[in-house]
Amino acid sequence: MIIDCHGHYTTAPKALQIYRDAQIAGLKAPSSAPRTKGDITISDDEIRESLEHAQLKFQRERGTDVTIFSPRASAMAHHIGDETTSVHWSQHCNDLIARVCALYPKNFVGVCQLPQSPGVAPARSIPELERCVKELGFIGCNLNPDPSGGHWTAPPLTDRSWYPLYEKMIELDVPAMVHVSSSCNANFHATGAHYINADTTAFMQFLTADLFADLPALRFVIPHGGGAVPYHWGRYRGLAQDLKRPPLGDLIRNNVFFDTCVYHQAGIDLLARVVPIDNILFGSEMVGAVRGIDPETGQYFDDTKRYIDALTSIGDADKRKIFEGNARRVYPRIGRAIA
Amino acid sequence: MIIDCHGHYTTAPKALQIYRDAQIAGLKAPSSAPRTKGDITISDDEIRESLEHAQLKFQRERGTDVTIFSPRASAMAHHIGDETTSVHWSQHCNDLIARVCALYPKNFVGVCQLPQSPGVAPARSIPELERCVKELGFIGCNLNPDPSGGHWTAPPLTDRSWYPLYEKMIELDVPAMVHVSSSCNANFHATGAHYINADTTAFMQFLTADLFADLPALRFVIPHGGGAVPYHWGRYRGLAQDLKRPPLGDLIRNNVFFDTCVYHQAGIDLLARVVPIDNILFGSEMVGAVRGIDPETGQYFDDTKRYIDALTSIGDADKRKIFEGNARRVYPRIGRAIA
Repeated sequence: MIIDCHGHYTTAPKALQIYRDAQIAGLKAPSSAPRTKGDITISDDEIRESLEHAQLKFQRERGTDVTIFSPRASAMAHHIGDETTSVHWSQHCNDLIARVCALYPKNFVGVCQLPQSPGVAPARSIPELERCVKELGFIGCNLNPDPSGGHWTAPPLTDRSWYPLYEKMIELDVPAMVHVSSSCNANFHATGAHYINADTTAFMQFLTADLFADLPALRFVIPHGGGAVPYHWGRYRGLAQDLKRPPLGDLIRNNVFFDTCVYHQAGIDLLARVVPIDNILFGSEMVGAVRGIDPETGQYFDDTKRYIDALTSIGDADKRKIFEGNARRVYPRIGRAIA
Repeated sequence: MIIDCHGHYTTAPKALQIYRDAQIAGLKAPSSAPRTKGDITISDDEIRESLEHAQLKFQRERGTDVTIFSPRASAMAHHIGDETTSVHWSQHCNDLIARVCALYPKNFVGVCQLPQSPGVAPARSIPELERCVKELGFIGCNLNPDPSGGHWTAPPLTDRSWYPLYEKMIELDVPAMVHVSSSCNANFHATGAHYINADTTAFMQFLTADLFADLPALRFVIPHGGGAVPYHWGRYRGLAQDLKRPPLGDLIRNNVFFDTCVYHQAGIDLLARVVPIDNILFGSEMVGAVRGIDPETGQYFDDTKRYIDALTSIGDADKRKIFEGNARRVYPRIGRAIA
């Protein structure tokens, strides 16, 4: 079985965005009426249509089986509005993911968006996390280290204000993917800079703090191949040594995992060469950040399975770990979900 | 000849930091007296002592010849104080580099720190750039894309507010290394996150704008191996294609260069595999971000010459470009300086 740990519902029916646009417009309206959650009407056929010619088609063509699927990351936009805005928006987005998973239980397993909001305690996201895991059968969450959308006003992920949410994650036995959303800072292109920077930033936060000594069962997936980290693996090994921190292999062993959303062979070769195989999970981000075909290969940039298939530095047993075994270990609830 | 394009004076005599501490203390003092530049007293022997057992020793041991040398990057701290603070501090730091270069004209060539300050027009750095190039014989500058120190409040590097400074760089025929300073944002470890993020951010800004169409003679070195960019070369090729931008090779050809401050063999192998050789400049950041010895090799992490020597994917002619030829092209004034 091949489990893709990183897919977003980037092709959701238009009604979702129409709702969001109205919600945002409502924030600007001069009204003192309490904002209501409102409804979104999307038919099962519309959901099927949105997936059949995109994610499902690519699963079939590329030979992957199940995608750990979450709402569109760039659309989380936690910086818009307030906590209520994010609660309503997150619930709708997560409910839609649950419908996808119900329609295609062999193809998709849910991961939720959290109703984060700048300045709001992370613990406030616990009810939605519990709802998604206990009621909707989700197996993880996406955690935004920068709800401000590029201004980085939240405390680091190692700050104790995050701990109540982490303790709930541990209780539920679900990991978080560290995933920012869109950027409202003109310096940062979302998928080309903000995403990658956040991955690098989170890793260095983990390296410099005792988070995993405090919470040894806490697990994070750092997407996009770990940002800049594998390319600078020597730098991070050296920094860890200079800072009297544990060796990187020890530091990440049970707690930090990288996906394979790296869109060329040389990058995947590097990843498999330096990062312990037990800490790599297959992911593609399909349909996501890069949608074109690589003129150098004639294949989609984000068809990352091909790069792993082509790896010569590791054997089949290691590839099975990357494709399936590691995901089952990091997301233990996936066993029940796809049984 | 081997030219190291990336060295900072991280070992400057204590008097420099004592001056800076007093300058910062002065900012907090309740005084309406105009702040004066003040003096720093450092003897030639103190300068020699600071270098003989550090940068000069490593040059000899590693077999490199000349270092393009600038003030300590993390100490630029443009976010501290105001423009006057930065002007005084930059002038002192640059004058000290000029003394280093005068004492060891075969070993060091100067690059200046600019007196940037949050909210201050980049054009205000022109006088110090001109002074350093015309009077001190410097051959380039370090340009901070985030003078706020981790809050990213300045416009992107492609914004027209930077153009007057760029036009002066072109007139003087000097490049800039894109280099942030320390971070006052708790999210960003300076050398482990902020530096690398800034490199990645700058590249994506260049990718999405027409800066080099407007200013075809403008040249930037992106340090630390280009941040995350080479590792995600496929992602950037794909983003460029999706965004209808030029192919990366065309985009960077005469304008964007990466150094080799990547502290392990796998990283350098990747860099040389994906980035055009003409766009790679040898650099080590020595003595800098990582000071220890790699237990896996028994050599200093930042002895990057070894990784290039060990490259098997390119021949001697290409290595000479990386070690010397490309630096002479990007920093044309170096010919006069080390004649």
